[in-house]
Amino acid sequence: MNFSSDNAGPVHPSVLQALASANEGHAPAYGADGWTTAARDRLREVFEAPEAVVHLVATGTAANSLALATLSKPWDTVFCSEMAHVHEDECNAPEFFTGGAKLTPIPAPLARITPKALREAVQREETRGVHGPQRGPVTITQATEKGTIYTVPEVAAVAAVAREFGLRVHMDGARFANALVATNASPAEMTWRAGVDALSFGGTKNGLMGVEAVILFDPSLGWEFELRRKRAAHLFSKHRFLAAQMLAYLADDLWLTLARQANAGLARLVEGLRPLPGCEIAWEPQANLVFLRLPRGVHQRLQGAGATYYLWDGPLEGDPDEPVLARLVCDWSTPPEAIDRLLALAAQGPA
Amino acid sequence: MNFSSDNAGPVHPSVLQALASANEGHAPAYGADGWTTAARDRLREVFEAPEAVVHLVATGTAANSLALATLSKPWDTVFCSEMAHVHEDECNAPEFFTGGAKLTPIPAPLARITPKALREAVQREETRGVHGPQRGPVTITQATEKGTIYTVPEVAAVAAVAREFGLRVHMDGARFANALVATNASPAEMTWRAGVDALSFGGTKNGLMGVEAVILFDPSLGWEFELRRKRAAHLFSKHRFLAAQMLAYLADDLWLTLARQANAGLARLVEGLRPLPGCEIAWEPQANLVFLRLPRGVHQRLQGAGATYYLWDGPLEGDPDEPVLARLVCDWSTPPEAIDRLLALAAQGPA
Amino acid sequence: MNFSSDNAGPVHPSVLQALASANEGHAPAYGADGWTTAARDRLREVFEAPEAVVHLVATGTAANSLALATLSKPWDTVFCSEMAHVHEDECNAPEFFTGGAKLTPIPAPLARITPKALREAVQREETRGVHGPQRGPVTITQATEKGTIYTVPEVAAVAAVAREFGLRVHMDGARFANALVATNASPAEMTWRAGVDALSFGGTKNGLMGVEAVILFDPSLGWEFELRRKRAAHLFSKHRFLAAQMLAYLADDLWLTLARQANAGLARLVEGLRPLPGCEIAWEPQANLVFLRLPRGVHQRLQGAGATYYLWDGPLEGDPDEPVLARLVCDWSTPPEAIDRLLALAAQGPA
Amino acid sequence: MNFSSDNAGPVHPSVLQALASANEGHAPAYGADGWTTAARDRLREVFEAPEAVVHLVATGTAANSLALATLSKPWDTVFCSEMAHVHEDECNAPEFFTGGAKLTPIPAPLARITPKALREAVQREETRGVHGPQRGPVTITQATEKGTIYTVPEVAAVAAVAREFGLRVHMDGARFANALVATNASPAEMTWRAGVDALSFGGTKNGLMGVEAVILFDPSLGWEFELRRKRAAHLFSKHRFLAAQMLAYLADDLWLTLARQANAGLARLVEGLRPLPGCEIAWEPQANLVFLRLPRGVHQRLQGAGATYYLWDGPLEGDPDEPVLARLVCDWSTPPEAIDRLLALAAQGPA
Repeated sequence: MNFSSDNAGPVHPSVLQALASANEGHAPAYGADGWTTAARDRLREVFEAPEAVVHLVATGTAANSLALATLSKPWDTVFCSEMAHVHEDECNAPEFFTGGAKLTPIPAPLARITPKALREAVQREETRGVHGPQRGPVTITQATEKGTIYTVPEVAAVAAVAREFGLRVHMDGARFANALVATNASPAEMTWRAGVDALSFGGTKNGLMGVEAVILFDPSLGWEFELRRKRAAHLFSKHRFLAAQMLAYLADDLWLTLARQANAGLARLVEGLRPLPGCEIAWEPQANLVFLRLPRGVHQRLQGAGATYYLWDGPLEGDPDEPVLARLVCDWSTPPEAIDRLLALAAQGPA
Repeated sequence: MNFSSDNAGPVHPSVLQALASANEGHAPAYGADGWTTAARDRLREVFEAPEAVVHLVATGTAANSLALATLSKPWDTVFCSEMAHVHEDECNAPEFFTGGAKLTPIPAPLARITPKALREAVQREETRGVHGPQRGPVTITQATEKGTIYTVPEVAAVAAVAREFGLRVHMDGARFANALVATNASPAEMTWRAGVDALSFGGTKNGLMGVEAVILFDPSLGWEFELRRKRAAHLFSKHRFLAAQMLAYLADDLWLTLARQANAGLARLVEGLRPLPGCEIAWEPQANLVFLRLPRGVHQRLQGAGATYYLWDGPLEGDPDEPVLARLVCDWSTPPEAIDRLLALAAQGPA
Repeated sequence: MNFSSDNAGPVHPSVLQALASANEGHAPAYGADGWTTAARDRLREVFEAPEAVVHLVATGTAANSLALATLSKPWDTVFCSEMAHVHEDECNAPEFFTGGAKLTPIPAPLARITPKALREAVQREETRGVHGPQRGPVTITQATEKGTIYTVPEVAAVAAVAREFGLRVHMDGARFANALVATNASPAEMTWRAGVDALSFGGTKNGLMGVEAVILFDPSLGWEFELRRKRAAHLFSKHRFLAAQMLAYLADDLWLTLARQANAGLARLVEGLRPLPGCEIAWEPQANLVFLRLPRGVHQRLQGAGATYYLWDGPLEGDPDEPVLARLVCDWSTPPEAIDRLLALAAQGPA
Repeated sequence: MNFSSDNAGPVHPSVLQALASANEGHAPAYGADGWTTAARDRLREVFEAPEAVVHLVATGTAANSLALATLSKPWDTVFCSEMAHVHEDECNAPEFFTGGAKLTPIPAPLARITPKALREAVQREETRGVHGPQRGPVTITQATEKGTIYTVPEVAAVAAVAREFGLRVHMDGARFANALVATNASPAEMTWRAGVDALSFGGTKNGLMGVEAVILFDPSLGWEFELRRKRAAHLFSKHRFLAAQMLAYLADDLWLTLARQANAGLARLVEGLRPLPGCEIAWEPQANLVFLRLPRGVHQRLQGAGATYYLWDGPLEGDPDEPVLARLVCDWSTPPEAIDRLLALAAQGPA
């Protein structure tokens, strides 16, 4: 009953199989191998972006930080949601990679930046010439940290404001697949056609061992990205093993299948929780994670039975009927049995 | 016939098996899993260093850069060999991770820093108070970039000079295992007992997919390292897959076995090349790589037959008897047949 | 009629005289001269801090950035008011000097951080271990960017919260003198006795040509500060000319006299504006600057007559009775005639 | 008898007078004043470079570091002489300002880079694609740290090599005026006409209090420089006092007059020393500083009489006839009497 995060899940068997298949003899290092070429080509196809530059890295923070650094100058400020992973959970990695750019958090209901709030934030900056931070790129997370998604028109509306001021747009797609299957948009529609310049295309949270792609729809950014990746120690020597994972991920739309499984698991969980007394879905989940309020006693029962997930607030001691705020996440591998067991436990009420 | 680098080689099957074995259900992310605890404990045992702090990363550049940054201040200079990988081949990663420290290359015959040259270099710095760079750590590579090794007394002698000036010592051990089996020293003798404060313990070049350990013999450095690792986007979420590799590597001394295989392959290659007319071993190799001079015509024959390795200098055109300088590397997996085929080709003389 | 900023004002004649007096023959460079020793000693006396380390720099941004960098780690976040100069008006200098630390702006009524808001902000950070930014120092501005001041107990209350969490406290005292004379506190009471660890002691806005002192009440921070100052190119070779300014500033309490003049000028201005129809003092000024709302027509009349000051908002076109928000600043040199002329113009109503 | 450095000297009286003249009432801050406009225009005239962007800073290290950062990327290496001030005496400031670029010291007889050595150094870099540091700008010092100068054709020859590889050229002109008067070249001939892209135009060592200009002959670099200057805390609020110094410096060719005085002082010193027994001019000085070998006993006599200058090597104890290597510098203000007194003392032989 592990609902802590989709990065706690296992690797899909076909990914492991791909690693084994790639493990034949010697291969050129640092991405000069055939798997890497194939993975890049395949991503360009998937995104209908034949000119895009594609690079693989092993962590989501690397993907985001390298992409933002490539889009920024050190004297810029990056516009992000106030709940953005890049701002909250990366230990100043964006500041490090950019050489000291600032991040300007924008009020964002359920972690979605609105065009209006973005415009206000952008207008507020750079009325002070050389004295204030300069306007840098906009980054949005899709699906968001709160389990919500931007529709394609919403992405386009945010990107339009960025364009109006000549700013670039980055999408943190650690859960891109989950958002995509929820909207039935195509990869191209959700990204460059809507105005996205660079995408962190997540794999690790969705069945890979540790691979993310950065897709730069403007190919002129490619070489700088390569230099930044090497300089940040994120260029893998045995690069074929990143590429092989990505190839397996894209084969037969495995990535979409896995995302659908994760979203479906979450939906099953939510539908089971919704009618339970004292349980309150904090807001409608749209991808593979949910925030909900549980009576503390129910939480204690679940924890006692070995369920794992994060509490967002609420002390563990006190009135068993008082609610705590919990985040539960499903990944592609979450067993329906685990979901049902959690639901059964929750149905028993406070411990 | 791939002799280009030990990072072009495959992953050892037992490492792949370990990945599969670790792929069971959910596990805590970011190193809070049991595999990670076990791998750290095991490394502490192997190094007889129960207090050491151990962290896993996925690339050698990350290991080196994070270790050097943890040992340095941005106003320091890091003393290294003039041929050091950190200076020559990491695209300013040490400068990036340290926040702008300098590297002072020291004349180093066959890539080995001598105590005398180190003392001179250290004395030369910081006669200028606040104006010059401050004296920072010393880093040595073991085995070196030129295929030589430091004996334990040689390591100790370099470290003694560092200690004399209060400087820390880092060892870039991307090929640590190859050096160890060549000297029959114990891991502890080669490192902390000889005065090494921090070790980049290589795995990737010796049969892993992509794992290096950083071993901080001074545990007070541990938390800063952790923060630096996260901030540099080198903390893996599915961390168990790094740890599982390392556990397989250490099990039954696999790491030493693989290093012996690599060194033996190289020895076989060298002994075959040595008597060939026009072939000259540039200096005696001590680990798993050799530099040698070949008649250009022989080189052309080898390349034509598909052998891969790096040329250090010498244009490809011209007199077929003129020598070129080549570097050939064996890893654990280099097939004896490939070695013998290369030797047979070389014995045929210029193409 | 220049009310744009106290850094638009001239240098006090006795400061110019001190420059001339110091201009005798040769003197050791880089602060090894007698003027510098005397200035440091004098500041230690003024602050009753015999152990403090004192360094001179030429700009307020240098003083703030170097001080914050000395108190921070690159993975920290610096807690500041949402209106802090370091956050709004230094083009990411603190991020640059700290090596990429974050700044966490805290809601601050009239630019004063409250203990409650600080505690909430500090508690909100670092619930995420290695993932979030770490808690770094707290910086407050005295007098604030909004013309308000912290009383000594208010400084102490903020510092007490910082202490509770083991955090250091920096004070941006670009207008320290103006705050001091407004409260009748002693320099020591306003700083280290209230819990301040490092002070940017402003001079440039109060009659100097370009000198600020950084006073580190914890002398263990001194050498790192020196290295950071040199590395940031802020160590002056002809250092005696910084020191001579500071000595003149402190002689016969000139600094306090000048601050009193600036505050008195502002008071005269405010008392004259207060009764004017349509003029509204936005909040009570406590030092040498005021924010006020003026009918646009009055603003146009003033501008037309050559008065300079900054508008904070309000378009210049439109209804002449509609208010605009203006900031007016007096320095030690603002002529009473200029104040009176502005008042007379304003009294004439919209142009 | 202070021969320690030209930055130990005083400010020329007309510069002090200019500060007093500029001290009239209020003036726009941050360079928006008339003095600044005039100084920039005047420098463009002096350099016959109507399109050049000119910025003033207060220290030579700031001028150099900001210029190099504007010409570099963090993954570049800057080619410099092995004795370059930027490499030896700026406490890693170039590394800091560039965000971690490397400096590649080039063997340079008497501190002058030769075209051949530069070409070799440039060719040696970047044969390793993304792995090595990338080729960045070339910086030369004029006059050099060893008191030699580049002739105009020598500058052009170095710049031609840089151009061949598409690299920019920076000139550290802390003693630019001393070099110029020694060669009778025009400012334009010595800089942009010879291929220099950016010049640190020194003033502080030649009679100013603390002002250097950075002249960017490619105006497209201007805005980035401005942002870097502000972010590094080197934008002065009371900027008119920098500009007024520069205007006085350029008026009536004062800068050239002062440089001629300094060079003439040095020549007088050298001609007096040359015939003295045991004195050996280490190499022919070409500007305002000389390296010479003195019998230790003579050195002791000089020091005992209060002469100040730097010793480059040689312990102070031992055989009085054994030579020590000393550097002596004259500035515009060095009194002929001081020179003659030193000569008289030296003529007396060992103490």
